[in-house]
Amino acid sequence: MLPNGVQYADRFEGISGSAIRAIFKVLARPGMISFAGGNPSSDALPNEICAELARDALLADGKRILQYGATEGYPPFVESLHQYLASTYRFPLDKENILPLSGSTQGLDVLCKAFTNPGDTVLVESPTFLGNMQTLRIYQQKLVPVDSDEQGILLDKLEQAVIAHKPKMLYIIPTFQNPTGRTLAAERRKPIAEMAAKYGFLVIEDDPYRDLRYSGMPLPPIKEYDQSEHVVYMGSFSKIISPGLRVGYMIGQADIIAKCAIAKQGSDLHTSNIAQATVDQFLRRGLLAPHIEAIVPAYREKLNAMLTELATFPTGTAYTRPEGGLFIFVTMPERFHAGEAFQKAVERGVAFVSGTHFYPDGGHHNTLRLNFSNSTLPQIREGMAILRTLFSESLNS
Amino acid sequence: MLPNGVQYADRFEGISGSAIRAIFKVLARPGMISFAGGNPSSDALPNEICAELARDALLADGKRILQYGATEGYPPFVESLHQYLASTYRFPLDKENILPLSGSTQGLDVLCKAFTNPGDTVLVESPTFLGNMQTLRIYQQKLVPVDSDEQGILLDKLEQAVIAHKPKMLYIIPTFQNPTGRTLAAERRKPIAEMAAKYGFLVIEDDPYRDLRYSGMPLPPIKEYDQSEHVVYMGSFSKIISPGLRVGYMIGQADIIAKCAIAKQGSDLHTSNIAQATVDQFLRRGLLAPHIEAIVPAYREKLNAMLTELATFPTGTAYTRPEGGLFIFVTMPERFHAGEAFQKAVERGVAFVSGTHFYPDGGHHNTLRLNFSNSTLPQIREGMAILRTLFSESLNS
Repeated sequence: MLPNGVQYADRFEGISGSAIRAIFKVLARPGMISFAGGNPSSDALPNEICAELARDALLADGKRILQYGATEGYPPFVESLHQYLASTYRFPLDKENILPLSGSTQGLDVLCKAFTNPGDTVLVESPTFLGNMQTLRIYQQKLVPVDSDEQGILLDKLEQAVIAHKPKMLYIIPTFQNPTGRTLAAERRKPIAEMAAKYGFLVIEDDPYRDLRYSGMPLPPIKEYDQSEHVVYMGSFSKIISPGLRVGYMIGQADIIAKCAIAKQGSDLHTSNIAQATVDQFLRRGLLAPHIEAIVPAYREKLNAMLTELATFPTGTAYTRPEGGLFIFVTMPERFHAGEAFQKAVERGVAFVSGTHFYPDGGHHNTLRLNFSNSTLPQIREGMAILRTLFSESLNS
Repeated sequence: MLPNGVQYADRFEGISGSAIRAIFKVLARPGMISFAGGNPSSDALPNEICAELARDALLADGKRILQYGATEGYPPFVESLHQYLASTYRFPLDKENILPLSGSTQGLDVLCKAFTNPGDTVLVESPTFLGNMQTLRIYQQKLVPVDSDEQGILLDKLEQAVIAHKPKMLYIIPTFQNPTGRTLAAERRKPIAEMAAKYGFLVIEDDPYRDLRYSGMPLPPIKEYDQSEHVVYMGSFSKIISPGLRVGYMIGQADIIAKCAIAKQGSDLHTSNIAQATVDQFLRRGLLAPHIEAIVPAYREKLNAMLTELATFPTGTAYTRPEGGLFIFVTMPERFHAGEAFQKAVERGVAFVSGTHFYPDGGHHNTLRLNFSNSTLPQIREGMAILRTLFSESLNS
């Protein structure tokens, strides 16, 4: 109960975060096999390297690192990030197009702060990342879901929704999407950039999983087709170095970036310099490409192990076959209820997330998201065997 | 110019941040003596110690530090912070009353997000910290200034404003205030807590300078008188360890903290674990008290040097005599214009901030803020001599 006379803001109406937070409390139980989170594998976290990088950075430039920095970023990191991005992507970009973030999810927060009014419409994939749905809801955005198929968002449905709802933004995760693991087909990317230019809305391209590709060829981001600067690209080092450092970035038109920097001032003034300096050293020493190369095989093996297990699930079990990322999305027969199965699964020592949480309008109670990155191969086999038995029971009861 | 069809949010109407940002570009000029920022002294930043602490933390607990953490904080830091706060303050507090922040300024952002609606009123000191005025304005708060004297905010004026405006919050910096350096008198503290309980508004007690005391006795925070849990206390390690790490905290009633944690999720999910772990080590090894003891004498000397210089300024120069903190506030005769003097001062190699930026309603063009912490003693003498000459010229022209 709040103190006398104190009330929540209207924007917090219906915001509880409790569904998922409750799950994460369950995960703390000893021995729990968790397919629930979106955590990178512990094995993939370069703690010994980072220990040296953080120390070296503080010894070499500690007075600057420990002092107040610019919202626009720790200068050596802005430089190495710029070089990294310029060598990774084919779209032109200058330093004024880049803003370091405290995790890429901060990008959506500052974009909402600077560019949306309550009651504006944002188009989202259905299903989509629930954390960012919460952010959009706190900014009182009207979320309009747009249907997808195996190739990602459906262009005709998207254009219909754009015409009908005049959205401020489209929020989209084009590569190894959360929660589905799907990748937006190459031929659907350019038309999205063109649609944004034609109708005048921002495309928020959230691309944190891009470098975790286990098969197939990399596709150009939507941003590469962006002639009109309507696309804001958000990237992250969370999945390829460390999420605990909280370092990501956004790329966009200079005036958009400038306003987002002002929005970020109140949030945290600037991203922690020690975190920026550690990632800077990682980039500067050429450690990123070999590190990704080193971690990808184990992720590939985990994905394949989980897919192998899913192939033995009861008839009627459908699931995505991602080429990368951290997640598989499972659709069970209509009569299955993932929320009820979750309760029983937890009792048997396995956790996942019910798919309903990822749908803007809820429903889809027969779906669930499985994460494979944060479990060992034996845990994947054991956990999936438990789920197979449980799901069979559920379907036959 | 923004891309076609893209518009700023209404809340960004009139938000530019440019006045102060322009000043900080000036500071980059070589040889500039800056009394403008709020930076700790470079000498006071423990970079070599932090280099070892960051490395040790990553070697000892790197897998957890580099992994996603809880919004509620890196567990060892929550523990050491709780111990530190419990031994520092006399108000009861549990871990659920504490939220680590990415700098204490994030506290106001999440409080505004969770507890204010556009058009609500926030009472502020006049003058007050301009960064947080910008945050309040972005959240479309109506800022109502309340007059202060040498002992801080005037209680009768405060109660009149509370009755007239029914504010959601009072934002107050009770100790070595920014920009004035003033400290709220002991006997005005309890009545503020009582007023909050009586009328039902939140007191946001922003107290980052508290430990930088050079004379006089420490006073209890307003929070110590808070029987009704209307006071939210914000503290920071920015001025006593490092601002570049971005680690602060808020203390408040458990339900307030829980909602602020949800508001923080979208901002940065959690404060960078490496930053939290470094401060944790600083606390755990008992380094904080001796570090503060070590840095205070140099700050005291700088304050006294600047006050000594000010004593030789032209007749009619009035200024505060702080017992701590980073700032002195100067009031010149009415005909003086700090903005014009600033332009000339910069040409002569000295920077400060015009006082007008700190007043919610502007005006007060004869005032300015001087920072003494970030200059050497010779720079203080040289810079103040330049200002003395310049201000004399301005007054006599």
